[in-house]
Amino acid sequence: MKWLTGNTKEILTALNEEAKLTQVDNQKVEEQVRQIIQEVIQNGDQALKAYSKKFDQVTLQDLSISKETIDLAYQRVEIEVIKALEAAKENIVSYHQKQKQHDFMDTEQKGVLRGQLVLPLARVGVYVPGGTAAYPSSVLMNVLPAKIAGVKEIIMVTPPSDEGIPDVILAAAKIAGVDKIFQVGGAQGIAALAYGTETVSKVDKIVGPGNIYVATAKKQVFGTVGIDMIAGPSEIGILADEIANPVYIAADLLSQAEHDTLARAILITNSPNLATQVEKEIVRQLATLPRKQIAEQAIQNHGRIIIVATIEEMFTIMNEIAPEHLEVQLTDPISYLHEIKNAGSIFLGEYASEPVGDYFSGTNHVLPTSGTAKFYSPLGVYDFVKYSQVTYYTKEALADAKDAITILARKEGLEAHARAVECRFN
Amino acid sequence: MKWLTGNTKEILTALNEEAKLTQVDNQKVEEQVRQIIQEVIQNGDQALKAYSKKFDQVTLQDLSISKETIDLAYQRVEIEVIKALEAAKENIVSYHQKQKQHDFMDTEQKGVLRGQLVLPLARVGVYVPGGTAAYPSSVLMNVLPAKIAGVKEIIMVTPPSDEGIPDVILAAAKIAGVDKIFQVGGAQGIAALAYGTETVSKVDKIVGPGNIYVATAKKQVFGTVGIDMIAGPSEIGILADEIANPVYIAADLLSQAEHDTLARAILITNSPNLATQVEKEIVRQLATLPRKQIAEQAIQNHGRIIIVATIEEMFTIMNEIAPEHLEVQLTDPISYLHEIKNAGSIFLGEYASEPVGDYFSGTNHVLPTSGTAKFYSPLGVYDFVKYSQVTYYTKEALADAKDAITILARKEGLEAHARAVECRFN
Repeated sequence: MKWLTGNTKEILTALNEEAKLTQVDNQKVEEQVRQIIQEVIQNGDQALKAYSKKFDQVTLQDLSISKETIDLAYQRVEIEVIKALEAAKENIVSYHQKQKQHDFMDTEQKGVLRGQLVLPLARVGVYVPGGTAAYPSSVLMNVLPAKIAGVKEIIMVTPPSDEGIPDVILAAAKIAGVDKIFQVGGAQGIAALAYGTETVSKVDKIVGPGNIYVATAKKQVFGTVGIDMIAGPSEIGILADEIANPVYIAADLLSQAEHDTLARAILITNSPNLATQVEKEIVRQLATLPRKQIAEQAIQNHGRIIIVATIEEMFTIMNEIAPEHLEVQLTDPISYLHEIKNAGSIFLGEYASEPVGDYFSGTNHVLPTSGTAKFYSPLGVYDFVKYSQVTYYTKEALADAKDAITILARKEGLEAHARAVECRFN
Repeated sequence: MKWLTGNTKEILTALNEEAKLTQVDNQKVEEQVRQIIQEVIQNGDQALKAYSKKFDQVTLQDLSISKETIDLAYQRVEIEVIKALEAAKENIVSYHQKQKQHDFMDTEQKGVLRGQLVLPLARVGVYVPGGTAAYPSSVLMNVLPAKIAGVKEIIMVTPPSDEGIPDVILAAAKIAGVDKIFQVGGAQGIAALAYGTETVSKVDKIVGPGNIYVATAKKQVFGTVGIDMIAGPSEIGILADEIANPVYIAADLLSQAEHDTLARAILITNSPNLATQVEKEIVRQLATLPRKQIAEQAIQNHGRIIIVATIEEMFTIMNEIAPEHLEVQLTDPISYLHEIKNAGSIFLGEYASEPVGDYFSGTNHVLPTSGTAKFYSPLGVYDFVKYSQVTYYTKEALADAKDAITILARKEGLEAHARAVECRFN
């Protein structure tokens, strides 16, 4: 693991330089994706089937997955997995229900009513990646907040495969309450959701992670439909003092590192002794990990140990990193909550190991990455609603407002705006 | 004005076809914008000055506008305009304060704490368009919600001009509480905010409307920073029955039409008689409008009168249009509130003329356009905060969760995730 030392400014400069190096220009992908989207707009289902043949080597008769197929898949999944998914669902639902927002009405001004309605999106698309790793937990995390928001129809798309969609993915979709599933992946899957085809209904918003083609397609259809954040490689930041447990810290860093060779695992500590112990533990624990190669490469290339003098510096630097996951393994962790400005999901104390959030606690595991926690939020119920403003004025209230409105409208050169109010008094 | 009649399905099909025709492919602009952004990343202030010379024909010594310049501009603005802006500010603040959200903490489960923090963005950029029309009201609408959210630094950028930035824009910035103003517009202004230069600090989010270069640049920097929605041409939809006042309706339709030749003004009514009267009124009122040419072209090309049989059909069609502004000029308008599924800002009754929302009531006038009210919200305090999740587990609570976590982690092939929990019990 690479060590960074120095004062706060030096460390931040070093981190900034590293961030710049990871910025990629993917103009070629953008052009390919643009063509795929146009093709789907023009040829609909036919284009989807052609791309499935070309990219996934699957010849599809039917794009949609039948209820029967889903039920059979569900039955094939081990009962303890079903039970674990159901337990996770219960926690996800109870946490996300706290996020529900309510309409408000303000009647403080005479003859004036001003309010805000919270309205669910009508139809949402969820992208579920294919490939070797099937993540049923992500299906729950993307779908359940939409259900709680009151979305009427949730459509899942996922790449086709000769072996069929993994049973556990279909089971998770059933448990979460997905309404329709289509086997179509990549940029063509996103295009289908954004523009609709004969079979796939156009949605209002698309969520869910995917590869570079999926991410690029989401960015291109942004505006035609809503999208969630663009997900980057996973990250964990851990703040620890000298009494923290190096075994736990190493294990949590590795749980992030095993995701992806680009995953970032960062420890900031004021104890060089702890740092040394964590490094030793990482070597020890790595030895027997099934995904050793991935985790090792991630730790070597993107693992960082940052040594600082004070706890204050820990937070200054970590707030600049704005990690997706933040573990606070300091004595009396709750006392530092107010120091945290930027982090997707915060885990306090030595028993709030990050995987508890991935699988069980009920907080969402779809989180802002690559420093975007400075402006993005975890996926939540708020992502599946939109607000409408409501205004009512009596004639008397409008009379009181008339001068201000007409002065400003005329100052902006918008005479028809002024007259729209004045004609009510002629 | 073009009339549309028929059953709901026929009308929706016709509207959909019209929407397709307005989709533009702006690949050339995208390429230009990409180059501008790269140039700003590499050459900073120097690039900004070069583009100001090239695009705005202004040779700049200093990018920033001094406090002195702002104070002098403020003093030159007519006192009644300052008073109207102050009155508008008061209403904007009192409305948006109702949007403030609070942290929550959930302690229902033994040994578990799950919560959500609401944290303000640290730094926000506001783009203010230049050109002939100066819109001080938009400065208030973009800046005040950020102030209420608790944003620490608000940076405004606006194109330079040989005559200087309009006094009223600088005055509005002062009233709203903008922290810094830079005279740089177009894609280069967006790039400066997104990546930072020697003079302009990198922000976390960029809001504010602009031309096609600004909109394209915002889309391209999306992900590096947050952005608000991409604004399209302005729209109004009016629902009216036979007892509505054709004078008011015509005036409100025209107040939208005068914005832009692409502005859409749509009346849906069950009274052909009212529709005919509204058309006559539009002709009469147009005759003396200063912006007659713009409004006339908008009405001719994008004005629509839709005749339906029932009030139910009015809402079905209008929900599909998802207008930026919606006026409900029906008898007992509040009784229809629950029928509205998609609309940016709703105006109820004959005295809630749309310009009251543009200038005075305090609801935001930065609204989702072009049907995006299906998934976007008005600009609000929620656009300037992000959430962080908080999780705390005791050892006992983690013990209860252990099986579910390890079963799911192993099912997903993520052994290090399972071990991170298990190592706490070895």
